[in-house]
Amino acid sequence: MKTLSENAAFGGTQGVYSHASSACNCEMTFAVYLPPQAKEGPVPVLWYLSGLTCTHENAMVKAGAQAWAAEAGIALVFPDTSPRGEGVADDEAYDLGQGAGFYVDATQAPWAAHFSMWTYIREELPTLVFRNFDLLEEAQGITGHSMGGHGALTLALNHPEQYKSVSAFAPICNPTGSDWGRMQLGAYLGEDEATWQRHDASKLMAESGFPTPVLIDQGDSDQFLGLLKPEALAQAMALKRQAGTFRMQPGYDHSYFFVASFMEDHIMHHAEILHRL
Amino acid sequence: MKTLSENAAFGGTQGVYSHASSACNCEMTFAVYLPPQAKEGPVPVLWYLSGLTCTHENAMVKAGAQAWAAEAGIALVFPDTSPRGEGVADDEAYDLGQGAGFYVDATQAPWAAHFSMWTYIREELPTLVFRNFDLLEEAQGITGHSMGGHGALTLALNHPEQYKSVSAFAPICNPTGSDWGRMQLGAYLGEDEATWQRHDASKLMAESGFPTPVLIDQGDSDQFLGLLKPEALAQAMALKRQAGTFRMQPGYDHSYFFVASFMEDHIMHHAEILHRL
Repeated sequence: MKTLSENAAFGGTQGVYSHASSACNCEMTFAVYLPPQAKEGPVPVLWYLSGLTCTHENAMVKAGAQAWAAEAGIALVFPDTSPRGEGVADDEAYDLGQGAGFYVDATQAPWAAHFSMWTYIREELPTLVFRNFDLLEEAQGITGHSMGGHGALTLALNHPEQYKSVSAFAPICNPTGSDWGRMQLGAYLGEDEATWQRHDASKLMAESGFPTPVLIDQGDSDQFLGLLKPEALAQAMALKRQAGTFRMQPGYDHSYFFVASFMEDHIMHHAEILHRL
Repeated sequence: MKTLSENAAFGGTQGVYSHASSACNCEMTFAVYLPPQAKEGPVPVLWYLSGLTCTHENAMVKAGAQAWAAEAGIALVFPDTSPRGEGVADDEAYDLGQGAGFYVDATQAPWAAHFSMWTYIREELPTLVFRNFDLLEEAQGITGHSMGGHGALTLALNHPEQYKSVSAFAPICNPTGSDWGRMQLGAYLGEDEATWQRHDASKLMAESGFPTPVLIDQGDSDQFLGLLKPEALAQAMALKRQAGTFRMQPGYDHSYFFVASFMEDHIMHHAEILHRL
């Protein structure tokens, strides 16, 4: 693991690191925020997954999350959203290929050689992070924005033994029924839609629910409502009698101003669950 | 005035606007954050001046200021740091010309045709802002980072009748005695150093002080300490018996992670003074 930068922030440290990823078969960059409480002993960790076109940097710089993580005493990890580099397959569309990994393990050419973001986020990066930072492996939560909200929800719903808390900002809720999903799942996983099902948060929610309360925020002025399909997730949560909160926030769009506006609530949601473990 | 974007943020609105500036003789872009309280009536306003290479966007996106402005009920204005455009003089150095206006009115060629940031910040932009937004013209504070901290301090110290509160993050404190200052003041104002004096915060502080408490934050791991010369301002404040606080923050560098870490304190500092007026 290489240290690219470390900056003091809110009494803790915001670092950026890179490493050779075997899952993605390329160099990957990620960021870790350690709150001041990490100097005294291990703290819980919240994974933040970003959306289309983002890198590790967007949320690290624009979400205002460190202030609340420092207050709550939890660490943050900001992974990249896909493998990258000259040898990595890409597409001219902003929503396929580099910057658009969709948090799946691709099985189809040309993507399968590098696009294993599911395994990267769930296995390889945690192993690296828990080896290099003194964090509570048994106290992990996960959140994310847009495509990252999809990743957070699908990872947590498939693996509640790993992620003890989950929330999302304007997630892609129903990718098997949306142009933000069908094209990508088809490209990465192939035409057999049976393989898509465990990557659809609304379907997973309807089937299994989640053991701890779920927090979802969505802006009603989001320019991508037709692609995100929040109604699918809201319906599934209600039908499943899922403990939690789905908030439609009047006036808010899809930007990081929306994410930042509700970051305090999300950090505190995770901290409350993770500190109780 | 043209509206370039408006996003809901923390119950208020983050907007970006542009207008034809007569002071700078070019199109200028700026940002305004209106807190939720602005819907009920006029609120105080805090000017935030950015540093070298920045535009209106850096602090708007990276400083986390909106959260605290919403809590405190004050508006924020983020101006650009210089005139810009094809017809505007520039220099290959990052610290002269576009992105480096130094908050002075240039009198020398080729800068005098556009570089009137002093007049722009103090007269033209306020006139525009108070005409278009319902803000309390009698309740203005000013702050900034690095070159913007220099701008904030020199504007406030010269015009305490306009700016009722002042603070700064890692300001350029003594430009008449620093490589961040002598080159620029010489280029913009000419070789007569008498014209430089009212643009040196430490000299102004030593002469006149400021009517309300002053708040200065500086990181002790700032990579630019030798250019910022905080010791000059700290000494002047102490000698003048200036009410206020000068804080040397251990471990912090010159980045926006430093600015964001102490933004709450600065917003609350201004809000307390401005709401009391």
